[in-house]
Amino acid sequence: MVKINDNYLKLPGSYLFSTIGKKVREYSGSHPDKKIIRLGIGDVTLPLAPAIISALHSAVDEMGRAETFRGYAPDLGYDFLREAIAEHDYRARGCAIDADEIFVSDGAKCDSGNIQEIFSLDSRVAVCDPVYPVYVDSNVMAGRAGNYDSDAGTWSDVIYMPCTADNAFVPELPDETPDLIYLCFPNNPTGAAVTKARLQEWVDYACKVGAVILYDAAYEAYITEDDVPHSIYECDGAKSCAIELRSFSKNAGFTGLRLGFAVVPKGLERGGVSLHALWARRHGTKYNGAPYIVQRAGEAVYSQAGKAQLAEQIAYYRKNADYIYKGLKEAGYTVSGGVNSPYIWLKTPKGMSSWEFFDCLLEKADVVGTPGSGFGPGGEGYFRLTAFGSYENTVEAVDRIRAL
Amino acid sequence: MVKINDNYLKLPGSYLFSTIGKKVREYSGSHPDKKIIRLGIGDVTLPLAPAIISALHSAVDEMGRAETFRGYAPDLGYDFLREAIAEHDYRARGCAIDADEIFVSDGAKCDSGNIQEIFSLDSRVAVCDPVYPVYVDSNVMAGRAGNYDSDAGTWSDVIYMPCTADNAFVPELPDETPDLIYLCFPNNPTGAAVTKARLQEWVDYACKVGAVILYDAAYEAYITEDDVPHSIYECDGAKSCAIELRSFSKNAGFTGLRLGFAVVPKGLERGGVSLHALWARRHGTKYNGAPYIVQRAGEAVYSQAGKAQLAEQIAYYRKNADYIYKGLKEAGYTVSGGVNSPYIWLKTPKGMSSWEFFDCLLEKADVVGTPGSGFGPGGEGYFRLTAFGSYENTVEAVDRIRAL
Repeated sequence: MVKINDNYLKLPGSYLFSTIGKKVREYSGSHPDKKIIRLGIGDVTLPLAPAIISALHSAVDEMGRAETFRGYAPDLGYDFLREAIAEHDYRARGCAIDADEIFVSDGAKCDSGNIQEIFSLDSRVAVCDPVYPVYVDSNVMAGRAGNYDSDAGTWSDVIYMPCTADNAFVPELPDETPDLIYLCFPNNPTGAAVTKARLQEWVDYACKVGAVILYDAAYEAYITEDDVPHSIYECDGAKSCAIELRSFSKNAGFTGLRLGFAVVPKGLERGGVSLHALWARRHGTKYNGAPYIVQRAGEAVYSQAGKAQLAEQIAYYRKNADYIYKGLKEAGYTVSGGVNSPYIWLKTPKGMSSWEFFDCLLEKADVVGTPGSGFGPGGEGYFRLTAFGSYENTVEAVDRIRAL
Repeated sequence: MVKINDNYLKLPGSYLFSTIGKKVREYSGSHPDKKIIRLGIGDVTLPLAPAIISALHSAVDEMGRAETFRGYAPDLGYDFLREAIAEHDYRARGCAIDADEIFVSDGAKCDSGNIQEIFSLDSRVAVCDPVYPVYVDSNVMAGRAGNYDSDAGTWSDVIYMPCTADNAFVPELPDETPDLIYLCFPNNPTGAAVTKARLQEWVDYACKVGAVILYDAAYEAYITEDDVPHSIYECDGAKSCAIELRSFSKNAGFTGLRLGFAVVPKGLERGGVSLHALWARRHGTKYNGAPYIVQRAGEAVYSQAGKAQLAEQIAYYRKNADYIYKGLKEAGYTVSGGVNSPYIWLKTPKGMSSWEFFDCLLEKADVVGTPGSGFGPGGEGYFRLTAFGSYENTVEAVDRIRAL
């Protein structure tokens, strides 16, 4: 009799956003007259930019003609896209990353879930608390997390690095030595950014203890401050200790197109083994490349027209972030994030729990946000709002919250 | 110091098709004048059918308008596609599969690499020999395969089920009891098909011993014979023991678009745990859905126009298969497959090894095929040709081989 992977049974409840979706469906089902405004899940709402639509149409036409049809893509991505990424996201910022260090994928969620596979099952994992749930859950499924303490909401074998108002939501170096360190800046969910000087401390630490940093930079397009790095490779030595994960979802609206990439430097090795070679082998065996048409859409992100159009999109969402941040602050809420991030992180009022505030907002303001406790015990008493709605809805949602 | 997953180090050499690609690049680099005909990798060559191109353009237009833009897709796939699959691939053939038992993915390669994750690490895996390399390699990476015997080309903990001319390339029930049984029919690489009566024996066996069959039906569109089942769910009891994997690559030319699906029946459980729930959790945590535009393209496969156009594509490739099969048979080769499959499996002449014949064909006929030994030790002395080239190239390749 085959046995199942019983690590899955340790997972408490369902994935955070599935739970929110269910609650919202139930509420809207019983209140069909209400106009619900969703500032919960970090999903974009503006349509794809004209340069991207145009690239998609052209690529679709190519797929319809025998002379230009493309079958299997190269496992690691088309050169045209890998070159564009290396040039615009890295070399233009002074980071010496080559095209063949870029692994094109169908998104940072998949990469951040899969990347743990190339490491030993006894690796000690360190995560921020609160944290994007995929980092923890994928390690639970693999068997690295130990046992769940349902009272504390923590896993016995995971090293938690508290991100609190006291440390401006940027963690201290941990007391216990981790093997794998998940960092995400600008952060999901807190919206906090890290300065280059602070990130350099993490790079130095990882190099010293032989850990690998899995650096999620999915929100880098929202950075406005000069001393905040867009890539971990802006720090000295990062190519010896860090894998960077990037996404086209938040800078170009690709949540429904699915495109991202991982950077695994060729010189990054542990125990004499190249992590670049391991990830290439994983891609070659268990993945078959992102769709050609979507990779052409990705290329258009770096075109002159694409850049100009996307700068406008980012500015639109930033204006929303600004409105939420200032509006809630004026109303007396304690808020952070928002400056280098599309996420606003707020303290729930009157000592409410995160889910109490979720229910309150849904039922009294018809606004959907994300309970901070869904991101780990350190998120309890906090709440995340996103800037990805329309400006009109964002204004209306903030006004409704202020009127509570 | 973090340690790597040293199961990866056990893998011998690189993925089969990467090695072939390298050899062909080197040969064509040093013989730029030669016209190389590729009948190796199972990649399609006909452009996407007009109904699919039209669906893609419409969906791209939707993504460019605010009113119709779509962000994150449902993890498990859009209902319009899951409904179409359930209706046309299953209910139309008398299989009681519901839409919510369909898990839309970015292809059968990914699914067949990932599906092992939901099972225990001590599961005993049984594979046909020869076999599609992904089934074995993904289990090696997970740590289920034991140690590699480089002389025998086998893994100590894998149960091999020989597929030989003597059993018409359909395996016997194994002596040792497996937990997970990978079956692929019509088969890659041998092109062999299984009758419904023979497949029923496998279903009965799996139900008896509590094993789960992972049934890869990526080539079902090539079936021509009446007693060959298109789905394992045509067999009684299969919903209690089988997961089926399907692809849009070979029936609709989606190798470069990436779309497939897994069927995990809701009633399929082991140890009281629903495998449907486990796979849903895996999808929700580590995957983010196939692109909306690609799912609309998948829907078009089932439209009246799509069906008619794709029947023509399949007929075109079948004509190639027929030409290769008959041409090589007339030339004195021992050939099988081809009748219910786009693959022709031939015995290498004069006792040549598979790679010797590969080099011979490449250098003397400028034809690329796939060495049978790349699919496991049981493939030694065999060679795979595919029907996915153009008709003109297929005829030319066969004529060149006949002239050797």
